[in-house]
Amino acid sequence: MKHKGNCIIGQSGGPTVAINASLSGVLQGILENDLYNKVYGMVNGIEGLLQGKVLDLSDLFQTQDALDQLTHTPAMYLGSCRFKLPNCEESGTIYEDLFNFFEAHDIRTFFYIGGNDSMDTVLKLSNYAKANGKAVNVIGIPKTIDNDLPLTDHTPGFGSAAKYVATSLLEIAHDTYIYDIPSVTIVEIMGRNAGWLTAASILARTSYSPAPDLIYLPEVSFSVERFIEDVKAIKAQRKNVIIAVSEGIKDEEGRYISASSGAVDAFGHKQLCGAGKTLENVLKAELGCKVRSIELNVLQRSASHIASKTDLDEAVRIGKAAATLGAQGETAKMLCYKRISNAPYQIETFAYDIAAIANQEKTIPLSWINERGNDLTDEAIDYLRPLIQGEVLLSYANGIPSYCDISHLHG
Amino acid sequence: MKHKGNCIIGQSGGPTVAINASLSGVLQGILENDLYNKVYGMVNGIEGLLQGKVLDLSDLFQTQDALDQLTHTPAMYLGSCRFKLPNCEESGTIYEDLFNFFEAHDIRTFFYIGGNDSMDTVLKLSNYAKANGKAVNVIGIPKTIDNDLPLTDHTPGFGSAAKYVATSLLEIAHDTYIYDIPSVTIVEIMGRNAGWLTAASILARTSYSPAPDLIYLPEVSFSVERFIEDVKAIKAQRKNVIIAVSEGIKDEEGRYISASSGAVDAFGHKQLCGAGKTLENVLKAELGCKVRSIELNVLQRSASHIASKTDLDEAVRIGKAAATLGAQGETAKMLCYKRISNAPYQIETFAYDIAAIANQEKTIPLSWINERGNDLTDEAIDYLRPLIQGEVLLSYANGIPSYCDISHLHG
Repeated sequence: MKHKGNCIIGQSGGPTVAINASLSGVLQGILENDLYNKVYGMVNGIEGLLQGKVLDLSDLFQTQDALDQLTHTPAMYLGSCRFKLPNCEESGTIYEDLFNFFEAHDIRTFFYIGGNDSMDTVLKLSNYAKANGKAVNVIGIPKTIDNDLPLTDHTPGFGSAAKYVATSLLEIAHDTYIYDIPSVTIVEIMGRNAGWLTAASILARTSYSPAPDLIYLPEVSFSVERFIEDVKAIKAQRKNVIIAVSEGIKDEEGRYISASSGAVDAFGHKQLCGAGKTLENVLKAELGCKVRSIELNVLQRSASHIASKTDLDEAVRIGKAAATLGAQGETAKMLCYKRISNAPYQIETFAYDIAAIANQEKTIPLSWINERGNDLTDEAIDYLRPLIQGEVLLSYANGIPSYCDISHLHG
Repeated sequence: MKHKGNCIIGQSGGPTVAINASLSGVLQGILENDLYNKVYGMVNGIEGLLQGKVLDLSDLFQTQDALDQLTHTPAMYLGSCRFKLPNCEESGTIYEDLFNFFEAHDIRTFFYIGGNDSMDTVLKLSNYAKANGKAVNVIGIPKTIDNDLPLTDHTPGFGSAAKYVATSLLEIAHDTYIYDIPSVTIVEIMGRNAGWLTAASILARTSYSPAPDLIYLPEVSFSVERFIEDVKAIKAQRKNVIIAVSEGIKDEEGRYISASSGAVDAFGHKQLCGAGKTLENVLKAELGCKVRSIELNVLQRSASHIASKTDLDEAVRIGKAAATLGAQGETAKMLCYKRISNAPYQIETFAYDIAAIANQEKTIPLSWINERGNDLTDEAIDYLRPLIQGEVLLSYANGIPSYCDISHLHG
């Protein structure tokens, strides 16, 4: 068995609900096809690896039950980092240290699950390996709730975040419509440069609920005056207005709306006010009615209890495909989804050159946004809806979800 | 059949996930035992009734499927109001108008599902009926995420909100522990005068996660200096500190911590800063590490997708008990839960005089709070844990929960 060698896996960047599903997929692919002897996990990504923080995953996940629990656990079992590898020439001995570690541990493949910055790590390591004749394959597996990676149809983690956003918007609508008084509710959703997740709020609309009535994305510039006109126009038709805004909306000059507050609190600290809160204050001054803002906050990226089954199934599948790819000797590739059809919804996985992906950002096509810049087209709905289908049956203990023990991250 | 007469039901106060379950319970009790001919629903509570806004519920909910969907729908199918009935002597013709309506529609029982203020309506209507020889029974059914009604062991709606809070806190812990950098996370939870829901955050603790490390309730006065000491003490032991605070924490003089910010934003509007945000700003100035605050906001009272099965089952049961009670000719009573045992967890329902309940508030026993005022005892855990047990299998359509059509509330 010795000849198969070993591999190492890491996770990096911001959390999603599906990163552990991809990790579980890699482990399942390796187990099913007996691809490597040992699977190492780097704790806190490449930064932790540089400090020698490594786990033996082959020991920890041997049963399907354990792998399923990993699939259903939010955020990162292996922990994360926000570390960008320096360029080779400015790096001291970092690259040598890493590849010495790989050699010492007979590591043949390096898997990295992450978003934009993490794919930069994949690119740099694979470039170094090629330039220095190192027999280590480097494979990237995408993840991000922002859905902003190019070439792949969508990213693992996005569908579950989208399902959380759509479900929460519907529940906020039920919470809003009960009172016979006019009100405006602003819901702020994550996504600084790409509006995919805010766009997913459109999936909350039902035959009886038009919420969100207005949707504002960072892809088009935001005008406070036009916003006030939009809200007044809806208010003329309906008692309650519900609005989805991206945290990243910017004015004509490209300045974040959220940064326009220069407030200081009683203790003299600068108040950092989100886009939602800023617009709440604007509307309170403009309209004579109840206005509130709601920040969905970190739960949109960590609420495994309302994960999309489609998302988690696909994340496992892309992990398995990555395992095979690495073992086949491919390198400098990221796994991608290709959409075959919407009805029935079908995807395939394929691998693409990491150089074309790293440090690139995919935003919503402008043709999917209406002319007024406050809503989306049916094309957007057709793209988004399949990604939130299906529910996941979690195990619960003592009334809360039974997730993986992560005490190794905060011991 | 004419002799059975009719009844009317209303909902009032703030939303919970279980108010429609109690409505469904009343309807099921009436159907199963053939207690009334017609069931009217007041739209927007007593305020809507005074404007003649009434639905015929007997027509709308005839199948078990329809009743189950109602059980699983958040907030209020019938809409709500925040209307406090004036005292009889200052009321003009309000009471006469209401009882004329009851007589004209052969209404024998008035059911009202609500919290503190709604029980005041039950008290006033039953007093008027008694004083004026009106044959209308008035029955109250409790609900509130605040769990602050006296005499009943707990209130419908609380268990589901508690399950949401505990699950979210655990997911926030997973989101927090992934980075190898020190951080403080403050989670603000609803409950202005009673800390029950904030206390439920303790149910998030697992063998691997101590979050929340600190819990602050409105029952004990809050000192910013002591808070900073507490956080520093935990920080000396652990990388990440996660804190649960009630929105209603107050200083020694009884002033809300959330009100101490006198900030004004760039537009000149006063910034209303919650307790969590206020403490975030305090810690940012005190500690040299990442600090963030998260407001759970309205989802804690409207997230049916993570309802407690125990809560919804009990809410249906208390609704059924109310239906029987009204038909038996009882009046001026509120239904209550009595806890028989914790292991196995068992409750009974009973009815109690509304006069002893209306306008009273039940807070957490001080003996359940530790001496330092930043944690709870095992007695609190034993009380809370049974209330969040069990998960509800919702129906989904297009990837989002399939709730009742509420277009009659915002048409």
